[in-house]
Amino acid sequence: MTEKQTWSQRFESALHPAIARFNASINFDIELIEYDITGSQAHAKMLAHTGIISPEEGEKLVTGLEQIRQEYRQGQFQPGIDAEDVHFAVEKRLTEIVGDVGKKLHTARSRNDQVGTDTRLYLRDQIRQIQQQLRDFQTVLVDIAEKNIETLIPGYTHLQRAQPVSLAHHLLAYFQMAQRDWERLGDVYKRVNVSPLGCGALAGTTFPIDRHYTAGLLHFEGIYANSLDGVSDRDFAIEFLCAASLIMVHLSRLSEEVILWASEEFRFVTLKDSCATGSSIMPQKKNPDVPELVRGKTGRVFGHLQAMLVIMKGLPLAYNKDLQEDKEGLFDSVNTVKACLEAMTILLAEGLEFRTQRLAQAVTEDFANATDVADYLAARGVPFREAYNLVGQVVKTSIAAGKLLKDLTLDEWQKLHPAFDADIYEAISPRQVVAARNSYGGTGFTQVKQAVLAARTQIST
Amino acid sequence: MTEKQTWSQRFESALHPAIARFNASINFDIELIEYDITGSQAHAKMLAHTGIISPEEGEKLVTGLEQIRQEYRQGQFQPGIDAEDVHFAVEKRLTEIVGDVGKKLHTARSRNDQVGTDTRLYLRDQIRQIQQQLRDFQTVLVDIAEKNIETLIPGYTHLQRAQPVSLAHHLLAYFQMAQRDWERLGDVYKRVNVSPLGCGALAGTTFPIDRHYTAGLLHFEGIYANSLDGVSDRDFAIEFLCAASLIMVHLSRLSEEVILWASEEFRFVTLKDSCATGSSIMPQKKNPDVPELVRGKTGRVFGHLQAMLVIMKGLPLAYNKDLQEDKEGLFDSVNTVKACLEAMTILLAEGLEFRTQRLAQAVTEDFANATDVADYLAARGVPFREAYNLVGQVVKTSIAAGKLLKDLTLDEWQKLHPAFDADIYEAISPRQVVAARNSYGGTGFTQVKQAVLAARTQIST
Amino acid sequence: MTEKQTWSQRFESALHPAIARFNASINFDIELIEYDITGSQAHAKMLAHTGIISPEEGEKLVTGLEQIRQEYRQGQFQPGIDAEDVHFAVEKRLTEIVGDVGKKLHTARSRNDQVGTDTRLYLRDQIRQIQQQLRDFQTVLVDIAEKNIETLIPGYTHLQRAQPVSLAHHLLAYFQMAQRDWERLGDVYKRVNVSPLGCGALAGTTFPIDRHYTAGLLHFEGIYANSLDGVSDRDFAIEFLCAASLIMVHLSRLSEEVILWASEEFRFVTLKDSCATGSSIMPQKKNPDVPELVRGKTGRVFGHLQAMLVIMKGLPLAYNKDLQEDKEGLFDSVNTVKACLEAMTILLAEGLEFRTQRLAQAVTEDFANATDVADYLAARGVPFREAYNLVGQVVKTSIAAGKLLKDLTLDEWQKLHPAFDADIYEAISPRQVVAARNSYGGTGFTQVKQAVLAARTQIST
Amino acid sequence: MTEKQTWSQRFESALHPAIARFNASINFDIELIEYDITGSQAHAKMLAHTGIISPEEGEKLVTGLEQIRQEYRQGQFQPGIDAEDVHFAVEKRLTEIVGDVGKKLHTARSRNDQVGTDTRLYLRDQIRQIQQQLRDFQTVLVDIAEKNIETLIPGYTHLQRAQPVSLAHHLLAYFQMAQRDWERLGDVYKRVNVSPLGCGALAGTTFPIDRHYTAGLLHFEGIYANSLDGVSDRDFAIEFLCAASLIMVHLSRLSEEVILWASEEFRFVTLKDSCATGSSIMPQKKNPDVPELVRGKTGRVFGHLQAMLVIMKGLPLAYNKDLQEDKEGLFDSVNTVKACLEAMTILLAEGLEFRTQRLAQAVTEDFANATDVADYLAARGVPFREAYNLVGQVVKTSIAAGKLLKDLTLDEWQKLHPAFDADIYEAISPRQVVAARNSYGGTGFTQVKQAVLAARTQIST
Repeated sequence: MTEKQTWSQRFESALHPAIARFNASINFDIELIEYDITGSQAHAKMLAHTGIISPEEGEKLVTGLEQIRQEYRQGQFQPGIDAEDVHFAVEKRLTEIVGDVGKKLHTARSRNDQVGTDTRLYLRDQIRQIQQQLRDFQTVLVDIAEKNIETLIPGYTHLQRAQPVSLAHHLLAYFQMAQRDWERLGDVYKRVNVSPLGCGALAGTTFPIDRHYTAGLLHFEGIYANSLDGVSDRDFAIEFLCAASLIMVHLSRLSEEVILWASEEFRFVTLKDSCATGSSIMPQKKNPDVPELVRGKTGRVFGHLQAMLVIMKGLPLAYNKDLQEDKEGLFDSVNTVKACLEAMTILLAEGLEFRTQRLAQAVTEDFANATDVADYLAARGVPFREAYNLVGQVVKTSIAAGKLLKDLTLDEWQKLHPAFDADIYEAISPRQVVAARNSYGGTGFTQVKQAVLAARTQIST
Repeated sequence: MTEKQTWSQRFESALHPAIARFNASINFDIELIEYDITGSQAHAKMLAHTGIISPEEGEKLVTGLEQIRQEYRQGQFQPGIDAEDVHFAVEKRLTEIVGDVGKKLHTARSRNDQVGTDTRLYLRDQIRQIQQQLRDFQTVLVDIAEKNIETLIPGYTHLQRAQPVSLAHHLLAYFQMAQRDWERLGDVYKRVNVSPLGCGALAGTTFPIDRHYTAGLLHFEGIYANSLDGVSDRDFAIEFLCAASLIMVHLSRLSEEVILWASEEFRFVTLKDSCATGSSIMPQKKNPDVPELVRGKTGRVFGHLQAMLVIMKGLPLAYNKDLQEDKEGLFDSVNTVKACLEAMTILLAEGLEFRTQRLAQAVTEDFANATDVADYLAARGVPFREAYNLVGQVVKTSIAAGKLLKDLTLDEWQKLHPAFDADIYEAISPRQVVAARNSYGGTGFTQVKQAVLAARTQIST
Repeated sequence: MTEKQTWSQRFESALHPAIARFNASINFDIELIEYDITGSQAHAKMLAHTGIISPEEGEKLVTGLEQIRQEYRQGQFQPGIDAEDVHFAVEKRLTEIVGDVGKKLHTARSRNDQVGTDTRLYLRDQIRQIQQQLRDFQTVLVDIAEKNIETLIPGYTHLQRAQPVSLAHHLLAYFQMAQRDWERLGDVYKRVNVSPLGCGALAGTTFPIDRHYTAGLLHFEGIYANSLDGVSDRDFAIEFLCAASLIMVHLSRLSEEVILWASEEFRFVTLKDSCATGSSIMPQKKNPDVPELVRGKTGRVFGHLQAMLVIMKGLPLAYNKDLQEDKEGLFDSVNTVKACLEAMTILLAEGLEFRTQRLAQAVTEDFANATDVADYLAARGVPFREAYNLVGQVVKTSIAAGKLLKDLTLDEWQKLHPAFDADIYEAISPRQVVAARNSYGGTGFTQVKQAVLAARTQIST
Repeated sequence: MTEKQTWSQRFESALHPAIARFNASINFDIELIEYDITGSQAHAKMLAHTGIISPEEGEKLVTGLEQIRQEYRQGQFQPGIDAEDVHFAVEKRLTEIVGDVGKKLHTARSRNDQVGTDTRLYLRDQIRQIQQQLRDFQTVLVDIAEKNIETLIPGYTHLQRAQPVSLAHHLLAYFQMAQRDWERLGDVYKRVNVSPLGCGALAGTTFPIDRHYTAGLLHFEGIYANSLDGVSDRDFAIEFLCAASLIMVHLSRLSEEVILWASEEFRFVTLKDSCATGSSIMPQKKNPDVPELVRGKTGRVFGHLQAMLVIMKGLPLAYNKDLQEDKEGLFDSVNTVKACLEAMTILLAEGLEFRTQRLAQAVTEDFANATDVADYLAARGVPFREAYNLVGQVVKTSIAAGKLLKDLTLDEWQKLHPAFDADIYEAISPRQVVAARNSYGGTGFTQVKQAVLAARTQIST
């Protein structure tokens, strides 16, 4: 037999124990306890401020709640399954501490607006933490970029070598993705940071509450303008899960690249022992577990996003118990993104070494300079599509002959087209190929230097 | 045998016809043709502006492209499967029209930055159209709300009657959701409206292009700062798909409610014949097909969001052919959201009639005024949780006695608690129950009147 | 500093503590510990059986492993984060218990085939448990159906009343869904119950192992025929997650119906106190939390299915660390499905009461007998589409006149069509409307009686 | 103004044109037309067989329907948007052809059971086609495998070289996946091949139909036993979409590998010109578009699966218009899977050439034989975990010394452990490393030879 529930006066019999267990959320919403206490303190202050309760009552409630916070932190307050949820657990403990005045706390409030407030306070904090982690991640990227402006690496499209690029340029692409993630979280934050407190169960309340006062105490920037919307909106969670999914997309792309780079075939990086793991059976193995796990965890966050969308689809107004399912996926997504950002930042900062010699060699051994030959001709008046076709032919014959473009004689070049001159060799040297792409945002060293500076500025503000 | 491809000089043999068919995107990317032309015109003007081609050449390209636009609009230009994609189709037709100078159009550009530009131009337009549709939807909501401030309707939580509310208040909850959708699309727009043109295949270009010039011509507000990122970023599409999914969440919730309201059990609305359909076999049926279809189409947009996330997961830099798969889901989501918004706006404006008499009766026949009894006591000094428990008991005994709260005698009330007085009857009348919830954002008529005014202002700016 | 890892001889330095935490799976794969022990015992027996180790060594390993099982069950063995994963934890403890012979356990085996074996043993057990729960759920459905063969309830399409049906017939629709779930799990089971043990890391092993022997000991019906496939296949998990998603689809549909039925508008069922919950603020509320939560949890299982698909997409052979992410979603899906099946079975068995009087009234108050009028005419030679049109008209004029079909006079009927006779009144009485649908699988009572019998038979085998 | 609808007698006014467009499904369900005709012919024959209509009437209906099929095939019958859906389009055309008897076709049937029948007939055909394509794909795999039993290729875990394997063995892993796909489709087929015809709108029918007769004519193996279930079940579509998703998972994994193999870094395969494409700007490029597109299309099918699950979640019985949304995703998934299977089969059969010399070299240049050293010791009595640790050390010192294992002198080996002897060199030669993994399902040549034979047998039955 389970204990009688707080709301059970209208009920004749107690909950079936299996059903009580099924309904309870205390095992996961305990994560919200400090936000719940903070929110309740603001509510109590407001009740006193508006005269709904006396100043002394308000004071007692605030102090009693603070005591619960301390008890929780010290491990003395550990509500069990009987508590149903964190809100009832706190309210019950409060009444034990402060007596009957504790029963006044829930005046002019419902669990519906209360849990909405808690969740937003939680997510607000987490967003700021993730934004800081993005800054740390970006810092490491810029640090490595700064040292590798003139390190060349093959640039790929279709995983085929396309044109060599500056390693810094390559890494700064991830900087830009993280920058968008940071900005996007800022936009999400705007819609998270809105107070539903005072929306009541669904319709507002008959008490002369002051929602702006509680919003101010809790540093909310906005207030829900419609109570039905306030208790049933979970857009903010979905929007966060989408932003989180995009962070994972970006980390998964970088992960894929690190995994490729660490392979025997690429050999672009060496994994340091502190960030790699071995096999239980193959003694030679050094595995890139971190990026693999990050890549794998990507699906998990996508799944949580879909789950939350599914929960919301077709729900009539206002609150429905389905919404209790908003939390576990949200918490797990927050924890996953944070763990992945931390791990990838450590990996980049301490776990990877670029093998610059191998990279230098890699950019000389293929036809990734072919576009430059076409550009060379186009710059000398040959229509681009014609130039392109000419170079396509020379690539074909060179492959057949086992040669690279740099191996062609000037004579051969000029037979191809009279516009070629001795400067073609310089034009197709990897360093020049990179340097010459000096259009805004391109891989030319001048551009990349400016990009590094701009990046530094961006993250320092 | 398929025709030889534009890029085929390096190739010895033609594509296998089945593979050509498999690779081709012309059957769906034709939707981008006008954006492609506009983008190419800007590129041509820039080539001339920077001296990469002559002013005359630039002029010829721009005019030739305009001719293709007209040919397309008049149905004269209909590229088939041999065209591979819309970009090659246009370039090829251009060369037919203007001769060899057409082969200069692709100087300093790649399909990778070109298609990115096209897609953003397309989506930018579509976002503005959807925002306008949201405004139309909001307008209809406010129109109905304005006429129904004092129309009462049961308010629900858990689909159980909770507290009666103003019908206007209920509808304005959807206004708020649409408002967030509108604002969210504005944030997405910022990240869509960024030019990748000039990023080249992946690394920028050796030509002295002016990316700011093309961005200006195309009214882009920003420019991708990193060329690798510029050609491989699809965040903007995913972010849009998330915003689109949220619009569908909101429409599906309203749909669910309309379906409920139109049922024989609720009878809150009458569906007009112009917006309902019949059965092939049951002659009496009048079905709410519109909201059902909207609800059903919700899954479709969620699916496209998931598909796009899956496409991006773990893709190494920069462009990969997988990205060709970004379009169909995006186009279908745009079309679905637009069709659903249109249909729901028509349904609300012309297809629904609220049965106000039935609604008036509905709010008198249950215990949805029980909270007000608890509030009544709490306002008279009884701790809320105690008051709540007392009322729980009286509800239980009333149900057993087949009575409603309004049927209790004053004597019965006072036996329950001496604080009750004759004004309890007024306090629990449905109209007063609604009026009294006058906290900010609540359903009290004063609040709702202000909310209607505020809503009007919001959509008129 | 973390302890040195089992595989760390090839490594110079220890893992970064944050990375060790990130990589570790012990906090969730501990759920597999008994399966891991069972699998290892079979492996040890095989090693002895084939002479790879001595019979005494085999005996020691088996006994030592059994001791670990007992230690775990008694709470004495609780591996922490340092253990990395459950497999290493067990192997390490084994060596503590049995000494150096413990180091022979991993001969001819890899964690890759080991974890695959464990997961299949786990899932095999869980599938059988879920199948049993489905049988319990079906039993309750048949029990209620049996008592309600002649209880009428409105049948709906588009949530509009369509034709009345037998309540038993309605409930047996869910019986059929559960039956498909049960059969589908049987098909999944076939592909789960295949042994990867002995596939090694990816390529098999140089030792003369006997995979059929271990498969026999572990009651596997099949053996992976290709070692690369054996260690990297997760089809079985995805297939299970799809079957689990379908169970949730079915439970969510029933949940939706219970929520509707329990509403004030439908009043088709009364929720008993043991399976309903109250509100924190509205004392009158009795909420259908169980079906709401089940409906909400549906998204969660869909999400896990998508997550697992995403994890597998594009993974090169063979094992990749991404696969570690297969477990949490699988475990949570198993637990969710089991909890939902249990809760819904309790709800049906003990928590719901059908209000048969209200149901009896509901089937008399609408036009759900209109098809029967059309059928009446069609059976008398009027082409169906013509009859249908005639009835459509009479419904329209009746609604306008505020009448139901039973209120029409025989004269009115005959004016409509001369084929009508006095037996039309019987033909359109709800009981007859139901009884007459006596086609195979229809709602006619004779059919339903047979269906109840057939259902009993089906679940008793 | 739209034409009046078939069901419109009960309606006063016509549909709003935008709503008519929104509701219509004819633009996509036209794909079902031949199945619709076949199903209607069976229904008409049954009506005559049971005496519900006369033999002559039945004959007329069947012949008229056949005429529509011919008209459709010859492009003469092309129903437009006014037709609402394919079922009404056919029925209307039928009445034009055969006169009033056409109006009898819909006797004892509803669109709900009709569309369910059509969709199952469609999917049944498609499953058989896809199974045949899987056989073609498997055949190509076996063909290549047969020629490459002794071709070595590095085997990977974590994309790190793990142990060399037979190329045949590697390809046969995909054979096994396809085999499961084939079998799984067989299981899905069982649940697709069930007739809902005769379930009526939801409740069966009052006419003395014979459902077994129509099921027999249409070669259905089973009949839905519950009419409510029969018209509202879409499990079969979801189950197919899951099977389709798994096919895409497998194809995406192979695609990823081909993309890697075709890279400059791996150089394991050469793409032939007939199955590769070029760049619009980089003349040297030869891109693996086929596998990239296949990988990209994977997300699309996952998305359709999710969409269909979302559609079904929480739908009350029986038919709801949401179900109209089942078709487009299903059709697109069928088409996608078929196109991808075709393209990958062509790619393997004609578009890839394994560079066996490069492969032969690849297996000699790393430490992928380290496990064999550990096994060597373990086979000589050293506990495996000890042997493993020893080899870990020797790998570390060898890397530092720039040596491979084959470069160690016997003296060095024996210093490591006295059990080493001259046969260690043979034991670690790549060919022997592969040959020695002769456990069942392993990569040893004997095993692989048997596997090729077994595969041949499997697909020939």
